Amino acid sequence: MLVLGFSDYVEQGRRLADALGCEYDGIAVHRFPDGESRVTVPTDLPERVVICRSLDRPNDKLIELMLAARTARHHGARHLTLVAPYLCYMRQDIEFHPGEAVSQRIVGRFLGELFDAVITVDPHLHRVHTLGEAVPARHAQAVSAAPVMTAFLRERTQDPLLLGPDEESLQWVRAIAEPAGLEYAVARKARRGDRDVEIRIPKQVYRDRCVVLVDDMVSTGRTLITFAAALLGEQAGPIHCLVTHPLFADDATQALREAGIDQIWSSDSVAHPSNAIALAPLLAEAVESIS
Amino acid sequence: MLVLGFSDYVEQGRRLADALGCEYDGIAVHRFPDGESRVTVPTDLPERVVICRSLDRPNDKLIELMLAARTARHHGARHLTLVAPYLCYMRQDIEFHPGEAVSQRIVGRFLGELFDAVITVDPHLHRVHTLGEAVPARHAQAVSAAPVMTAFLRERTQDPLLLGPDEESLQWVRAIAEPAGLEYAVARKARRGDRDVEIRIPKQVYRDRCVVLVDDMVSTGRTLITFAAALLGEQAGPIHCLVTHPLFADDATQALREAGIDQIWSSDSVAHPSNAIALAPLLAEAVESIS
Repeated sequence: MLVLGFSDYVEQGRRLADALGCEYDGIAVHRFPDGESRVTVPTDLPERVVICRSLDRPNDKLIELMLAARTARHHGARHLTLVAPYLCYMRQDIEFHPGEAVSQRIVGRFLGELFDAVITVDPHLHRVHTLGEAVPARHAQAVSAAPVMTAFLRERTQDPLLLGPDEESLQWVRAIAEPAGLEYAVARKARRGDRDVEIRIPKQVYRDRCVVLVDDMVSTGRTLITFAAALLGEQAGPIHCLVTHPLFADDATQALREAGIDQIWSSDSVAHPSNAIALAPLLAEAVESIS
Repeated sequence: MLVLGFSDYVEQGRRLADALGCEYDGIAVHRFPDGESRVTVPTDLPERVVICRSLDRPNDKLIELMLAARTARHHGARHLTLVAPYLCYMRQDIEFHPGEAVSQRIVGRFLGELFDAVITVDPHLHRVHTLGEAVPARHAQAVSAAPVMTAFLRERTQDPLLLGPDEESLQWVRAIAEPAGLEYAVARKARRGDRDVEIRIPKQVYRDRCVVLVDDMVSTGRTLITFAAALLGEQAGPIHCLVTHPLFADDATQALREAGIDQIWSSDSVAHPSNAIALAPLLAEAVESIS
């Protein structure tokens, strides 16, 4: 087995290779002035190859993944696994308005035709229940980051109150909190646009309490900023946030700090200075479970 | 029949619809802050749909094309034609170094699986002789822009000397020049990198002669700038350039003018202020030829 990674995702690829006890090698990408990508993969590949890259800001990456996957097969790979801790296009799962592309299924099919196996972490699936419905690869597996999140909170916080932003997040917050016996609750969220959300916090005693805002993905940070603002006046203790997929557009982290959030912790699903939790052990387990 | 276009390519799409005597409608694209694209196509489509978009700066566009094509089929399109006057990834047609993706074949297969027919203009094919070898759609057709180029030069210039940048361009320059009985020749070019080329002009009497530099695609403009520099000291008359695919990265046109090039003329393959020649009549003929 060999793990192949891209230059924007080297550390995570190496950690995965280490956890699997196999070699790591790089896929080179050159972007031409006209916007095309030249992709070069190592030659003489073993039968089983894992390509590791998260799919945030996905369009260039999807094309480069197609070029890499087909070329890897040409150079000997017989069984190709994609490990994409953050999987793109999973939210557009129905036609919200007539004529809208159901991108989840279209991109899922694209990946399913390129790879024998697709592994991701906590995809944002609403109306489908298994990753296989969205990504018809022979093997499609969604890993939960909850165990490493729980272990992290146990080590780094004392009696925190975990808060999710909406009712959808309940299952996810519970999965992190319950194994460690932590208290948890969820707020109510209404979204009015890409950057406009309203949040009502649950009734709780917040005074001097360490609060951890838990979210599966953060892009502009509006949800967390509004969330922190809703806690103003509650005289809570330090407010931290714990994020699985730190997409963080532009200067979102600066805005989070200005909103009163103390620590920003994230998994290394997407490379970001806030990365504090390695997913490699979970991902390696999933790769090894593929027969 | 219906022509569908994207907002970055409306004028050309409308001109194609006019030339075909059919309706035009738009495909809407919204780019989310996290870099994903939401694509919306009109519903209740006729059986035959033409999607018109050039594929310069291609990666976002290829993903959006996939979303649009699959969604168009979902909404009634039975025969889908792609009209992409500029077709991306045609130059990487072999493994120049071990392990390089042969992008021409991979992207060609991607398009061939999405569309029943693919029509383009003067693709930069070196080692393959027909577009069908690169793009295995049921119908793949490369249209030559030479007839409209010839007509344009006949109308706008007097006794010009047409110059191509290298021996590869000979056939193409000849196809433009011969029908109008214009004089032509080609230079010799050596490329040392994306932005570094050397050009030796052919021996000719240039004095006071109107020279038209002809090239099939211009990106950084290095070739044309070097070409114009090689003519310095020849006391030529006005030096113009005629380009099929004006990709023009950054401030390339400003650099061309500073290099002494007077008029920059291009086909409307890629939207650019230099567009002077409409391809719609040629493209409509090709669409109509598909049974």
